[in-house]
Formats: sequence, structure tokens, C-alpha cells
Amino acid sequence: MSRFLSDKYQMLKAYTPGEQPREAGLIKLNTNESPFPPSPKVIEAIDSSASAGLNRYSDPDAAWLVKAISRYYNISENRIIVGNGSDELLAFSFMIFQNQNRKIYFPDITYGFYKVYAEVFGADARRLRLNDHLTIDIEGYFNLDGTIVLANPNPPAGTAVSCANVENILKTNKNNLVIIDEAYVNFGAESGLQLIEKYDNLLVIQTFSKDRNLAGARIGMAFGHEEIIKDLHKIRYSFNPYNLNRLSILAGAASVSDKGYYEMCTEKIKAVREKFVSDMENLGFFIIPSLANFVLVRHDKISGYDYYIALKEKNILVRYINEKRIGDYVRITIGSEEDMEALTEATKEIFDRGEGLR
Amino acid sequence: MSRFLSDKYQMLKAYTPGEQPREAGLIKLNTNESPFPPSPKVIEAIDSSASAGLNRYSDPDAAWLVKAISRYYNISENRIIVGNGSDELLAFSFMIFQNQNRKIYFPDITYGFYKVYAEVFGADARRLRLNDHLTIDIEGYFNLDGTIVLANPNPPAGTAVSCANVENILKTNKNNLVIIDEAYVNFGAESGLQLIEKYDNLLVIQTFSKDRNLAGARIGMAFGHEEIIKDLHKIRYSFNPYNLNRLSILAGAASVSDKGYYEMCTEKIKAVREKFVSDMENLGFFIIPSLANFVLVRHDKISGYDYYIALKEKNILVRYINEKRIGDYVRITIGSEEDMEALTEATKEIFDRGEGLR
Repeated sequence: MSRFLSDKYQMLKAYTPGEQPREAGLIKLNTNESPFPPSPKVIEAIDSSASAGLNRYSDPDAAWLVKAISRYYNISENRIIVGNGSDELLAFSFMIFQNQNRKIYFPDITYGFYKVYAEVFGADARRLRLNDHLTIDIEGYFNLDGTIVLANPNPPAGTAVSCANVENILKTNKNNLVIIDEAYVNFGAESGLQLIEKYDNLLVIQTFSKDRNLAGARIGMAFGHEEIIKDLHKIRYSFNPYNLNRLSILAGAASVSDKGYYEMCTEKIKAVREKFVSDMENLGFFIIPSLANFVLVRHDKISGYDYYIALKEKNILVRYINEKRIGDYVRITIGSEEDMEALTEATKEIFDRGEGLR
Repeated sequence: MSRFLSDKYQMLKAYTPGEQPREAGLIKLNTNESPFPPSPKVIEAIDSSASAGLNRYSDPDAAWLVKAISRYYNISENRIIVGNGSDELLAFSFMIFQNQNRKIYFPDITYGFYKVYAEVFGADARRLRLNDHLTIDIEGYFNLDGTIVLANPNPPAGTAVSCANVENILKTNKNNLVIIDEAYVNFGAESGLQLIEKYDNLLVIQTFSKDRNLAGARIGMAFGHEEIIKDLHKIRYSFNPYNLNRLSILAGAASVSDKGYYEMCTEKIKAVREKFVSDMENLGFFIIPSLANFVLVRHDKISGYDYYIALKEKNILVRYINEKRIGDYVRITIGSEEDMEALTEATKEIFDRGEGLR
């Protein structure tokens, strides 16, 4: 810490992202990336003519990308904003959408960044307890007195809330902004996008990092009432107007244009997930039903941490989250069929050799 | 404005970036971009294998790029941080480096974003008057009681402060952080980078947008004492850890590796600037001596706004800044030799036809 750091940030605890090792040969199932390359249309779009134009600024409105998203979802452009990853849009939202009492409600176990954002932007974080199987206690979110943030599906378990229940939360919180973080929605959950026109207190945030195979391009998007989107543009123009680079704008637009490839990839992930869950259950794992591209698993014979370490020794990286109530689990990204088979094989070996077992 | 926007941002006035029209055939001299394409090494680096890896997250530490910068400047990696454009690093700095009285000092006429950042992050902006020819009044920055931010060279005139004077400011402000924004330093001014090891109260911010021909890749970098850099990493990890995308990391590193091309481009810009200034002076313009890739010009016969409009009608875009003391000027980016000749020719026509003259 330097002697110039403001008092208010001295105790701040930053977010810890998943490990991003660069070693070849590693099976990386720890940060919920897609195992598939981006659409061939993306690879076509990022050619030498694209990079030859990099001496010019990107379009601060990313119009090309916003238009593509607008056409895809049939939502008007003034209800859409794009960000440098959905993290940037979440950060802006925590920053500017605080009511007078500054309360922001979200689950006790969820995307770890929410509590960091609350701290950075001086919000009063109210963490509501998930039910025993890590599902969201819907009624707990009725008639609150602050902003609500829900990840749907909710990591690290991947449990989802129905669109009807999102609507129930919206209806009982007319004076509160309800932010639904749909990073993982397209692997089987119901999106709240269909409610955008009906409720002016809804902000839906999505990302290109998971189902669109573009984690490395850093593209997030948010949908909401046009006045909410205007507010987000205002803070974006007060922070970093050229927040998306030229190549990511091209990559994002190309990816949106390739509906067939997108659907093929998400369907494949869902099929691999079902097969993987069944294989792991056969090995005696307890798995919370997930509608995301990851699953939270635990086994009576091995602790979460020991399983994480045993897999790491076999060059398979999963995510261990050292937090109350989930410390006995590991979170595993759904990768390719081969990745998941390698993981179940490695697990059998671990059990056969008794490595790290209790 | 939505009904959810926090009180404190309701009156916020966002920054207005230069126009970014997409029309073909326009000579764009309004946002200080380089007229030259990125290094051929950049174009080589952004190939299909690079985009095929976009399904994976970028390295949150951008180690590949930081290493390249470290080697180029011979500054150790723990004194370097990269951002999504230098704007992001400036925003973080205004956010977290406020002393108890929250004062931040910068010139009355300078990069327009400083006052926006001060407002967004609740700093007490103290704007110190530039001298009559828009040079910085060095002694006015001695012995202050808050953070100091100086652009060197300072837009929109491009006047520069010597390294000796930067050192004088550092010496007389031992308890204040001094931020030198060197976006334009490599077109002829002296960098403060050589003072980094000597002063623990110095933060130097640079960008790849101007002299490295990569405005569209959005890459900024900051250099300072390792504890200052650690603070910036902490807020980055509390806001948007994956702030640089994969392609920009590759583009930036490739650009840094091509010293010859970089030097050729900056030398060319400097030569074109000298020629352009002389041509414009021959047409009767008053030009403040600039060490940046832009010049601020005025002519007794035409107002700044009218000249801007007259050029725009001829498909040449320059920047008119409607602010006190500079409202009679326009700021012109130094583009290619052909661009500048087209501008002087257009100006002759404007004068010949008496368009918009007083």
C-alpha cells in the first residue's frame, strides 16, 4: 500500500479471479469458459484489414455491435449497452444505482464480485441466505427496500429461478431496481429479457464470455428501460467512453450473426453436462442440479480441497472456493466431452489409489 | 435519467469525446490518432490463431505485454500496470489517490476528462490558471496540499514542461502524489520516466493510442513506485480484473517489439508538424508552439467555430473546443503529409472565397 491510497480503500479486499495458468496440456475447467473456439465468422472477421485499422479509435457507441444484438434479440438499441466484459457493467451498476439507504441485496453465496463492488462503492450489502440446496429463497426477495442483484443461474451451484419468479420479485419491488445477472442463462435457464418491455425496474446483464465462446474478447451487455441504459451510458462516458476496442466490436458482432454455431455449442454443453452429471453420480458424487455450464460437486470420501489438489496433480484445474457452506465442494466447468471423460477417469484413479481420501 | 440513479450522479456532466464519424473520404484530424497503421508486427500477431483462442479469458496480469514494456523501458515489472486505455488508469487514480482534504490540482485548460473524474469521484478540483500562451505556471504547483495532475505536453495547445521542472514539482510536493499524463510525450517532450526510481510520489501515465498507432486497441500504461502500482492493481482487481482483452495484449506486445517502426512514425509526425506549422504561419495563423501531435491555431480573420465548420464542409474534421480562452482556436491533429496539405489548401480556398470570414 502506498502512502497516497485514500483511507476508504485501505481495507478493501479485491476479488480473486480463478487461476489463469498458461501451461500447455492442462485441462482447464475452473473459470467457466467454453471449450469451443469462437464462431468461424469471428475468426474471419479478425483479419489483417481489421488490425490495420487499429490506429483509429473504436466507436464509443459500438454501434455495429449494438445493432447486431438489437436485431438478434429484437430489442431496440436504446435499451442496450455494451461493456468491457459484464464485470464493467456490474461495476457501473453498483456504483450508480444506490437508493437513499444504499442497501443492495444479493444471496450469501453467489458471484464473489458482488460483495467487492458493494464495498468499493460504499453500498450496504445485505446477503440473504440461500436455501439448503443452494437455491434462492424467492420470497425473501419480496418487498425489499434496496437494489436487488441476482445471478440466474446462480454460481457456484448453477441453480436457477424461473421467469415467473423473477416477475414476482419485480412486481413486489416496484420502487427497487432488480438486476438479473444472466451470465449463464443460455445453458438451460429462463431469461428475463422477455420482461424488459413490461417492467421499468429490471436490468438484465449478459456476457459473451460463456455461451458465445468469447471470454478473451471481454464483451458484456445490459438490457433495460431506456432511462436506465442512459444512466449507464452517462457513467460510461464519465469513466471510459472507448470501453470496447475495435477488434472486440467486430468479434462480438460476427458472433451474434452466427446463430447456428451458437446453438450448436450451447446444446453440446448441455448434453455433455447431463452425461457428466450421470457419470459422477455413478461414482457416488452429490451434485446440485445445475442449469449452467458448471456443476458443484461433493463426495463423502474426499474433501473439496483435497479433491481440487488431487485433480490439479493430474493436470486438471477446477475451482475450489474456500467459503462457508460450500467448502466441501468443488466447482467444475463443463468442457468438451473428452475433458469431462478425462476428469471422471482421473477421479476413478484418485479413488482407486486412495489419494487424499478421508 | 431513471428513478434509480443515485443523487450524487444526477447532476454529473459526462465527458464529450471527439466526433467519431464513420464516413469514407473524411480527413479525420480531430482526436489525435496516428495516420499510420500499426506496426506490421501487430498485423502479423493478430492472425486467425489469435482469434481462435478467444474462448479463453485473457491473462488478468497481461504478463506478456507488461514484460515487453518492462524490457523496452528497462523498468521492472512491478512498477508497471496496463489499463483499458489510459483513461481507465486515470479514472482509477482519481478514484483512489485522494488525500484527506480531497484536493486535486490541475490546469484550468487541459484534458477535459480530469474535471469529470474529479466530479465522479468526489474530489475537490482546483484548477490552476495557465499562463497567457497556455503554458503551465510551474511555480504555481510548488508546495501544494493535494494530488497534482499534469498532462505533459498539455492539450489542447501541446505546451510542455521540462523534466527538470517536473522534478522541481516532485521535490516541493513530497507528500503529494504527482501524476504526469504523458499521452503525447513522445512527439518531442521530455518524459518523467527517468525519475520513477528516484521519487516515490510520481505516477507516469502513457498510452498506445497516439505514438504507437493503436487507439483502437485501447491500451494504457502507468509507471510508478511499486506500492502505487500495487494500489492500482488492487482497485483493478476490485473493478474489472480482465480489463485487457487477448488481442490487445498481443497487439501491444508486438508493437513494443518494433522499435524501428515506432521511431520512424514519431519522427515523421514531428517533421510533418514543423512543415505544417510553417505553412499555416505563412497563411497568417497564430500557433502556440506544440510538442505534441496536434497544434492549436487561430486566425484574426475567422472565428474558431467558423473555421471548424468551414473545414467540415470540405470533409476535414478538426476539434473545436467551446471553452473560455480557447474558443477562438481550433485544435488540429498532425496527420499524414497529404492530410495536412489538403488542410492548408482547403484553408486557402476558404480565405479566397471569404467563407465564414469575420
